[in-house]
Amino acid sequence: MENQNITPWNVEVMSTGESPVGIDYGKVINQFGCEELSNALVDRLEALTGKPAHYFFRRGIVFAHRDFGLLLKQVADGKPFYLYTGRGPSSKAMHIGHAIPLLLCKYLQDTFRIKLVIQMTDDEKFLWKGMKMEDAIYYARENIKDIIAFGFDPDLTYIFTNIESSHHFEQNVLKISRSINLNEAFKVFGFDMSSSIGQIGFPPKEIAPCFASSFKFIENNSMCLIPAAVDQDPYFRLARDKARVLGEMKPSSIYVSLLPDLKGVNKKMSASDQNSSISLDDTPENIRKKITTYAYSGGRKTMKEHKEMGGDISVDVPFEYLRYFLQEDDELEAYRSGYLSGNISSRDMKEKCISVIQKFVAEYQSSRQAVDDKEMQRFMDINKFE
Amino acid sequence: MENQNITPWNVEVMSTGESPVGIDYGKVINQFGCEELSNALVDRLEALTGKPAHYFFRRGIVFAHRDFGLLLKQVADGKPFYLYTGRGPSSKAMHIGHAIPLLLCKYLQDTFRIKLVIQMTDDEKFLWKGMKMEDAIYYARENIKDIIAFGFDPDLTYIFTNIESSHHFEQNVLKISRSINLNEAFKVFGFDMSSSIGQIGFPPKEIAPCFASSFKFIENNSMCLIPAAVDQDPYFRLARDKARVLGEMKPSSIYVSLLPDLKGVNKKMSASDQNSSISLDDTPENIRKKITTYAYSGGRKTMKEHKEMGGDISVDVPFEYLRYFLQEDDELEAYRSGYLSGNISSRDMKEKCISVIQKFVAEYQSSRQAVDDKEMQRFMDINKFE
Repeated sequence: MENQNITPWNVEVMSTGESPVGIDYGKVINQFGCEELSNALVDRLEALTGKPAHYFFRRGIVFAHRDFGLLLKQVADGKPFYLYTGRGPSSKAMHIGHAIPLLLCKYLQDTFRIKLVIQMTDDEKFLWKGMKMEDAIYYARENIKDIIAFGFDPDLTYIFTNIESSHHFEQNVLKISRSINLNEAFKVFGFDMSSSIGQIGFPPKEIAPCFASSFKFIENNSMCLIPAAVDQDPYFRLARDKARVLGEMKPSSIYVSLLPDLKGVNKKMSASDQNSSISLDDTPENIRKKITTYAYSGGRKTMKEHKEMGGDISVDVPFEYLRYFLQEDDELEAYRSGYLSGNISSRDMKEKCISVIQKFVAEYQSSRQAVDDKEMQRFMDINKFE
Repeated sequence: MENQNITPWNVEVMSTGESPVGIDYGKVINQFGCEELSNALVDRLEALTGKPAHYFFRRGIVFAHRDFGLLLKQVADGKPFYLYTGRGPSSKAMHIGHAIPLLLCKYLQDTFRIKLVIQMTDDEKFLWKGMKMEDAIYYARENIKDIIAFGFDPDLTYIFTNIESSHHFEQNVLKISRSINLNEAFKVFGFDMSSSIGQIGFPPKEIAPCFASSFKFIENNSMCLIPAAVDQDPYFRLARDKARVLGEMKPSSIYVSLLPDLKGVNKKMSASDQNSSISLDDTPENIRKKITTYAYSGGRKTMKEHKEMGGDISVDVPFEYLRYFLQEDDELEAYRSGYLSGNISSRDMKEKCISVIQKFVAEYQSSRQAVDDKEMQRFMDINKFE
């Protein structure tokens, strides 16, 4: 059944019935060949850090990984590691789905006090989206400020854009470029004869930061941990395939599931449709209006029917958002069981969702206001670690 | 008849008979679709400069071009232009064939007092030749010194390596990358499914310097003139095809024919076979030995036969070298006619060739010795034009 299409550039599930069908993450794991994140691994993480893991780990939001067990062993043995994540600056403001891997990175940086590199793939947006060069550069710089506002430590974080950076990792990009032939690239990325040679040449730039040798300021033999949305896995699978021939350590990755679109659980949230995403610069009124008007609900047609049958939690977008953004587990469980039993209406669910998202976005916006160009430069200075 | 194979990475003519057959430059012009350089154009060059053109222009060494007429009109109208050439650093020392486009650039820079940019494609050697990164970088730096020794003006010349440079033209590389699809690249460069994605991504880097907007220090709307060996034409043909869509001016190019290999006129000299090339760091004794032992001669089997039939000038490598390196036209003509009539023996021809090449190389070596790292930095400083 090919009703699910997931690549680094597109994520969609075709619905056959009436309601949107959510992404089948078991299938994704199967398609990509990564591993499900087991409770045993989360237990090991908690044992190592001596405190509860971020709630993403227990709710199936961080749901898959590659070699996360090996990474935890590395940490237990006192060996070095670092974090790598990235962002494709597709629009001026980011949406709340983009927050997920960043919140995860923040948790990992705070917990382990380790270096984090963040790549802005402005070149990717220029190559795939037909974006103007000036726009790609401008969005990248605005998004860097958006990212800083999540509270990363400037002394441990380096952010760079592919177009503007000094290409300190150019040598690794070249080495990776030479190790991948077109045949492989067709299979892994689905390129065809109409792909531009810029697109075909892009993947090594996203792969290079997986290897410690790309950065002078990362300790030799550091293992890399990549917290990412799962659609980016093809890059890191290839990174792992090529690690041995390049004399590098295989990176580890942990994958978050994709925050759904307002209109249904079958798509990932996209910044390009303003009516189906909640932007990090939306006003409280906007957030209310979007969720009220567009959020796909699992509620029944009449109140009576809802009370009798309970809501369909599996397609309910407001509940999905609570799963990502409502921190308190007991409250989340109350909404889940109340919805299933019919005691909580779809209106109650939307109201709770609205207040949780409004609060998250308002807090974010107050951090974001404090980020100016000078603060940005602190994060983009590659010489600060010397 | 597919007996002649010329790409930017390989040049060879298969011989069917006993003697090597030279490259058929009419066929090359036909294959690539560039134009033969007419005497009328050389007359216009001389009228513009008020002095005789470099002897390369009258001997079929500069033999083909694209839009050189338009470029001369540009000059006559007082509009700006600049020069772009390059070098693939395939070995530590360059050979005398590599000298040809550089001597032509020197003549053009001296005559028109214009800026020259020289690209060192160390990345190309890494991608195609399986060269180690360190070697490619090292050869590039050594070759930069070799190039400076030809006497370029540091105030008008900028030399950079693709690996080490600060990628000031990265934006143009991206724009060009997006404008070429794989289909086109297959046709123009002969890529196939086993090509690495690094190779496929390389051509935009050789194309970018064709456009004035790649360099802050080149006046807007400057036309670019590329003196190059003819096997590089596919890059510049593509640059011209894409110029309009990129909003750039089409570059002009003039092509030199390829200095033949010692062992025969059917191949271009290659630095990888030490016995078939004369290196710019060869000793006078080495030069004598190589020409005496390996240079393919058009002389007849016996002195008697040679006197009766005359030599076969069309396959005689020593005579070819005189055509490139003996500056005096009357002397060259004396050797040509004397050889054809049988009065000049193949030994005489080789002796003349040996002394001309020895003199050229000795003079070069004395300039090369004067080039140190500090002098090199003057050429590689991109801020000096500010």
